[in-house]
Amino acid sequence: MNFVPLLAQESAATIDVSAQLTQNLLTTNNVWMMLSTALVFIMHLGFAGVEAGFGQAKNTVNILFKNTITPILGIITYALAGFYLMYPGFETPGWFGFDAAGWSMFWFSPGDADVTAAYADAGYTYWTDFLFQAMFAATAATIVSGAIAERVKLWSYLIFTLFFVGIVYPIIGSWKWGGGALDAMGFYDFAGSTLVHSVGGWGALAGVILVGPRIGKYVNGKTVDKPGASVPLAVIGVFLLWLGWFGFNGGSVLSADPGLVSFVLVTTSLAACAGGLGGFLAGYFVFKRLDLGMVLNGILAGLVGITAGADVINPGSAVIVGFIAGILVVLSAVLLDSLRLDDVVGAVSVHLTCGVWGTLAVGIFSTNPDHSFITQLIGVAVCGVTAFVSAFVIFYVLKMTIGIRVSEEHEKSGLDSHEHGIRGYTIVYDE
Amino acid sequence: MNFVPLLAQESAATIDVSAQLTQNLLTTNNVWMMLSTALVFIMHLGFAGVEAGFGQAKNTVNILFKNTITPILGIITYALAGFYLMYPGFETPGWFGFDAAGWSMFWFSPGDADVTAAYADAGYTYWTDFLFQAMFAATAATIVSGAIAERVKLWSYLIFTLFFVGIVYPIIGSWKWGGGALDAMGFYDFAGSTLVHSVGGWGALAGVILVGPRIGKYVNGKTVDKPGASVPLAVIGVFLLWLGWFGFNGGSVLSADPGLVSFVLVTTSLAACAGGLGGFLAGYFVFKRLDLGMVLNGILAGLVGITAGADVINPGSAVIVGFIAGILVVLSAVLLDSLRLDDVVGAVSVHLTCGVWGTLAVGIFSTNPDHSFITQLIGVAVCGVTAFVSAFVIFYVLKMTIGIRVSEEHEKSGLDSHEHGIRGYTIVYDE
Amino acid sequence: MNFVPLLAQESAATIDVSAQLTQNLLTTNNVWMMLSTALVFIMHLGFAGVEAGFGQAKNTVNILFKNTITPILGIITYALAGFYLMYPGFETPGWFGFDAAGWSMFWFSPGDADVTAAYADAGYTYWTDFLFQAMFAATAATIVSGAIAERVKLWSYLIFTLFFVGIVYPIIGSWKWGGGALDAMGFYDFAGSTLVHSVGGWGALAGVILVGPRIGKYVNGKTVDKPGASVPLAVIGVFLLWLGWFGFNGGSVLSADPGLVSFVLVTTSLAACAGGLGGFLAGYFVFKRLDLGMVLNGILAGLVGITAGADVINPGSAVIVGFIAGILVVLSAVLLDSLRLDDVVGAVSVHLTCGVWGTLAVGIFSTNPDHSFITQLIGVAVCGVTAFVSAFVIFYVLKMTIGIRVSEEHEKSGLDSHEHGIRGYTIVYDE
Repeated sequence: MNFVPLLAQESAATIDVSAQLTQNLLTTNNVWMMLSTALVFIMHLGFAGVEAGFGQAKNTVNILFKNTITPILGIITYALAGFYLMYPGFETPGWFGFDAAGWSMFWFSPGDADVTAAYADAGYTYWTDFLFQAMFAATAATIVSGAIAERVKLWSYLIFTLFFVGIVYPIIGSWKWGGGALDAMGFYDFAGSTLVHSVGGWGALAGVILVGPRIGKYVNGKTVDKPGASVPLAVIGVFLLWLGWFGFNGGSVLSADPGLVSFVLVTTSLAACAGGLGGFLAGYFVFKRLDLGMVLNGILAGLVGITAGADVINPGSAVIVGFIAGILVVLSAVLLDSLRLDDVVGAVSVHLTCGVWGTLAVGIFSTNPDHSFITQLIGVAVCGVTAFVSAFVIFYVLKMTIGIRVSEEHEKSGLDSHEHGIRGYTIVYDE
Repeated sequence: MNFVPLLAQESAATIDVSAQLTQNLLTTNNVWMMLSTALVFIMHLGFAGVEAGFGQAKNTVNILFKNTITPILGIITYALAGFYLMYPGFETPGWFGFDAAGWSMFWFSPGDADVTAAYADAGYTYWTDFLFQAMFAATAATIVSGAIAERVKLWSYLIFTLFFVGIVYPIIGSWKWGGGALDAMGFYDFAGSTLVHSVGGWGALAGVILVGPRIGKYVNGKTVDKPGASVPLAVIGVFLLWLGWFGFNGGSVLSADPGLVSFVLVTTSLAACAGGLGGFLAGYFVFKRLDLGMVLNGILAGLVGITAGADVINPGSAVIVGFIAGILVVLSAVLLDSLRLDDVVGAVSVHLTCGVWGTLAVGIFSTNPDHSFITQLIGVAVCGVTAFVSAFVIFYVLKMTIGIRVSEEHEKSGLDSHEHGIRGYTIVYDE
Repeated sequence: MNFVPLLAQESAATIDVSAQLTQNLLTTNNVWMMLSTALVFIMHLGFAGVEAGFGQAKNTVNILFKNTITPILGIITYALAGFYLMYPGFETPGWFGFDAAGWSMFWFSPGDADVTAAYADAGYTYWTDFLFQAMFAATAATIVSGAIAERVKLWSYLIFTLFFVGIVYPIIGSWKWGGGALDAMGFYDFAGSTLVHSVGGWGALAGVILVGPRIGKYVNGKTVDKPGASVPLAVIGVFLLWLGWFGFNGGSVLSADPGLVSFVLVTTSLAACAGGLGGFLAGYFVFKRLDLGMVLNGILAGLVGITAGADVINPGSAVIVGFIAGILVVLSAVLLDSLRLDDVVGAVSVHLTCGVWGTLAVGIFSTNPDHSFITQLIGVAVCGVTAFVSAFVIFYVLKMTIGIRVSEEHEKSGLDSHEHGIRGYTIVYDE
């Protein structure tokens, strides 16, 4: 801990004005980054709300168990491996690396002055950087959990999470954010439409294919609705995710730069609103009802869609990107059901479909002439193939060994009473 | 996006100390304003919680639909019209204007350096200003939604919201915050007891009168309680609103001025506590029970009450203002029921009654000798007449055309199954 | 209100660079402290969620009533007495004092320039200091409320809270944070494992002993599970508490010092994760099931455990401290049940057991060689005896006078219908 509050130094005869200006700005940037970290953290409660709200009451505890353990495993594996895989300090842009010196510093000499001081130049501290990125990492696994809820074996999901968050996610991330080969190629992904959301979405798709649909979801060619336990819980979840996106996108500026961060918050908010409207209208035309679920997923779709280009897409374009995302999420959900791909909360439609759309949208709407549609497409494809194949292999190995699906009996009567011994809701007044 | 992080400029030979000091302070102020924006945003989840918690279970989805769409419409209409109506840049203090240059910049040249730089002098950026004010705007409509829930036609409410948030709210706001005629007269409303809360409250009153009470609410001269679906949800809502008020009042300082913002947070918190106590005691004496609903509305009453003068009322006076607001909200609720004015969540009592009280309280308790009770009263009356008449006209036209009330059959069996096709809660364990 | 935004002074011919640097840093520090205050505030919603989620549905409103009134009483008593008892400005380190000058300033001359300016040197304002500490104070009583829920008389709990938060908590706090005798001795408690959590935990233990177990909790030597009303509500509560700890520990640095605050956030997060894992594994071995309640309490245990030393314990040690806390909370819960001490939410196990553990852990793991296990033990014992005896006496006097337990009839049929006249949940679709 090498920073001394400047106030304590005031008595010194000579004040180094330049150093103090830099230190003051570092302090402000770091405050913004820490609060962005807190906002991304609360997205994990947002995911929990969406998934437990849209899932059936008999599986509520199981869903919440997954969503509580996921950030725990995510943060710990990120400290053990992910952070150093994701930011390996490539000497030449490549595909794989590991920052062994940083790892050693983290665990064995955390007060090391050189490392900390070097980070201060970045506008925030080493510790802030770690925690902000760790909160991001866990979201990739959470996306998977929502899609395959209500029938996946909990232990298999936990093992999948260890590998996916601890290894697959950070290696893919290193290609762009760690200064690897995709970054060198000019691929752009501001806050992770591809690196976070579509990576999670590809994992979800692999899981949905391998674990299969819930019993009774598709009967005689028809899709059967499985009513979620609590719509208010889903609404709480979506609003908390929207709130968290203030930090997810706003913090991805990696400083408190006033013009840039506030611009990002405006494009992010407009895309969320336009996505909600798009979902509202598409839901109305497709399902002939005021479908709250489609408004909620439309908001998330707009947020995922703007994430790749929130800093390089103008407000008017942000509205277009978000609105199209809101429509796409509805069409994607219909398509998946027609393919008998059962995604409990629409995670594939929100994070994969709109993550891909948002990344490509940078190639269309970016104000930076260096951004190219083809390069974006290459980035999407490279990350997509890697994420999907990796997730498929992990799930496939688990399926062949310990299994990834609960018994028919457990699925029918609900996972809560079998695996957890309690129910999600016990609202009884008579004894 | 014209701000370059200062850290990147350090290598320059000459450092302009004065410019960097200003830039650093701008960065800090802007961080506070962006986080205040996030806090005001989460108030929309707070309103959703209060309204879905106090509303009946058969209408939960309908209420949540309204509360999810409201900020979406609010933010979008504010970008399309409201922001430029509210801050028209009056050359002489007047009653109406539109900042066409700002509108054009927002949509067609958002990187315009001049506009952005001019805003930097204000202590925060153009984009932060827009988003903070946009989050405020949507609250005015949300207040209406709570009062007329459970029987209003959703489409009519949405159309009402477009006009009320897009036009009525910003024009009234321009009279004070936009530098218009009321501002020139010396009217004071720090964060909107009148401009936000009572404006919303008058709209709610107009709606309650025109849409009429729920079926079975008043039977043989007696008021029938309609139990809310979920008290925990209402509590979540009130706590989130209280949290949001840290940004609503704290952000209304429009900078991170340490002494002033923290003073505002103290008066705001004390008034909230005193309001809760006032509601507790008044509820105990009037209803002879430990009425949690009155404690919750008392907290909101105290918050609304202090909003007009949070920066000019001392802590001791803040306790008095809040406590009286907590008592008033109970008496107002009793009065409205005696007039057969059915307000599902007590929105008129919280936002109109206590909004008026708080604005007048500035004339009594302000430490600024320029504030006058008479001027406050004039401001309350001018804004009140305008808001009530405007809302009445909009609702009346809707009533005469597409109608504002659902059918008796739909109201009785609940709006959720008819308009939305799902239920708010599906807590079933046996299949 | 003596702070003028520096921007307004730019036109002055001479700029005092040193003063502006200090003012800028003060502004940033104060922003962090105000947001930490907001984060600690939201912990009260977190406690409400945990307690109402784990409590039975028939007592939901009663629990929420307690949790809503507690911060109200806490903040008001802290303004009336606690703040001046806790920071008495000891001239020589002692055991009791009262800052009468500060009290008078708060209530009768809140704009006093000298007091405000003196506080500015501390890195935040007088008002921020008050509000941050006031949010802390109320948590001590909330801890008690969870343990003795579902059978304690509400009025007795409220009177207990007045004395415990208004007098007992701040006097104990003054011994360390107010510069009293324990501080002079070298006792270390960074953010309150002892001063907040174990003090609340000792109060909870006294309450649990005197109020006795719920009817039907221990039958024929067996412990009977009383299913909580809503697991999602408990999960919301735990995540909000974790979020709030960003401010509870992060704000306890009392500045925005980048290196130190971000380091504290990392140790805090790692301990929370390790605690959740510890609770998960211990729960699995003890109860042979995937016990979500133990994961949730494990997270809280890890957070309480790291609170005393979050700034002086390295990341690796933080994982150990948290993991052990997660195991201890499970063993402690088993031990309490074997002693027929009925604690509804596990508050004694989380806050007392792990508060003591965390304080002692400073003596084992601290990187500061001045910290000693023996001194830590003395501090734990002195505070523990004082808190337990005080709470026992208050509850005992109440038991002998107005009583502390509701009637058997009320307890069996639920407190909500009797004392509050409403139910926590009314999820009915047929009329």
